[in-house]
Amino acid sequence: MVVTEDLISAVVIEVKKRLQQQNGVGSRVIPIELSARHAHISEKDYFQLFKEPPKNVRELSQPGQYLLDKRLRLIGPKGVIDNVAILGPFRKESQVEISLTDARSLGIKAPVRHSGDVQGTPGGIISSSEGIISMDRGVIVAGRHIHMDPSDALRLGVSDMDLVCVQTNSHRPLIFRDVLIRVHKDFRLAFHIDLDEGNACGCSTSTTCTIIKDTAEVRCACG
Amino acid sequence: MVVTEDLISAVVIEVKKRLQQQNGVGSRVIPIELSARHAHISEKDYFQLFKEPPKNVRELSQPGQYLLDKRLRLIGPKGVIDNVAILGPFRKESQVEISLTDARSLGIKAPVRHSGDVQGTPGGIISSSEGIISMDRGVIVAGRHIHMDPSDALRLGVSDMDLVCVQTNSHRPLIFRDVLIRVHKDFRLAFHIDLDEGNACGCSTSTTCTIIKDTAEVRCACG
Repeated sequence: MVVTEDLISAVVIEVKKRLQQQNGVGSRVIPIELSARHAHISEKDYFQLFKEPPKNVRELSQPGQYLLDKRLRLIGPKGVIDNVAILGPFRKESQVEISLTDARSLGIKAPVRHSGDVQGTPGGIISSSEGIISMDRGVIVAGRHIHMDPSDALRLGVSDMDLVCVQTNSHRPLIFRDVLIRVHKDFRLAFHIDLDEGNACGCSTSTTCTIIKDTAEVRCACG
Repeated sequence: MVVTEDLISAVVIEVKKRLQQQNGVGSRVIPIELSARHAHISEKDYFQLFKEPPKNVRELSQPGQYLLDKRLRLIGPKGVIDNVAILGPFRKESQVEISLTDARSLGIKAPVRHSGDVQGTPGGIISSSEGIISMDRGVIVAGRHIHMDPSDALRLGVSDMDLVCVQTNSHRPLIFRDVLIRVHKDFRLAFHIDLDEGNACGCSTSTTCTIIKDTAEVRCACG
């Protein structure tokens, strides 16, 4: 039997599952991570903006994702936002993810879309101290989503591309509807929302949430 | 029998109620109004900031509330926000209502509070082109709330100071928990949220919501 990456993944999932069964149903608590505005960038666009190749300065919570040591300026008809983070690795097409608050201050009518779904989205101007380019499209407000690996999906009873409701455990409690589930073996469990959404639920770095599987779990009698 | 204001109110409520009974249960739809950052101001503070008395430039949706023709600058340790609206009439104590986004950019740790509940809240500097004052306290992030009159409360089955859940009818749907009900004969039916909350639910000027009376009404199977 050849020990492939797929086999190892399958064994890891099975071991996790059995451990969870042993320990009860397993935790349903999901950490919340706030996504500040950021850009994913193509290699071509990168080298129009910067002379030097990027360095991986900081690993991010999602395995394989990292923050570059360069920042962008984002320019719209109404305003400018400086110091915008760039995430690696390079993508086939550049994409800028902002909040609706940012969209208003820039004067760019960015729609709520899931990452990669950029058809028909507005563009914008991005610049650095070394270059400036015009994006034809790709400025979006990222749709809220939960990253998880297959063992999380199994435990939480959801599948890739499901839409679920998520209740926050926060001092300004909310239930987010239409939350997209994304399952991949390399994903780490986290609910990703933008700063508007984070502020609306009074989110701090330690705030968690749970997926609502049954409407009876909704705590309507709040307070 | 003396025709007092109270008697008239009671008759109006009763007539509305009977009309609603006649026409079925009545609408449960509540309009959403976005509250941008604004200040309520005391007469004393006003005249430290402006030489001329205020003019009522624009009636607001809540009867008796109006927007003055003057604007403030709000100054915190980290930033400055210009063009802050001032609402009349004068209050006993000045109070500034901002979003958590504003709070971060100003560097003021404003807590989520209901209007008037300013004990222990941070202050800030407010200025105009004619004056500047330091508020000892009163910078808050307004807690979400629904204004309604007694006939609305009757129809919707809620009472003053209740906390309810509110489901938005919007493209980025949310359920707000811990929403305070405020009932007064002069209130006009409206769910008040700040711009962070408005962005989080993708709210436009025509967005509406409903109070969830039963968890079975929660649309968990979204999409």
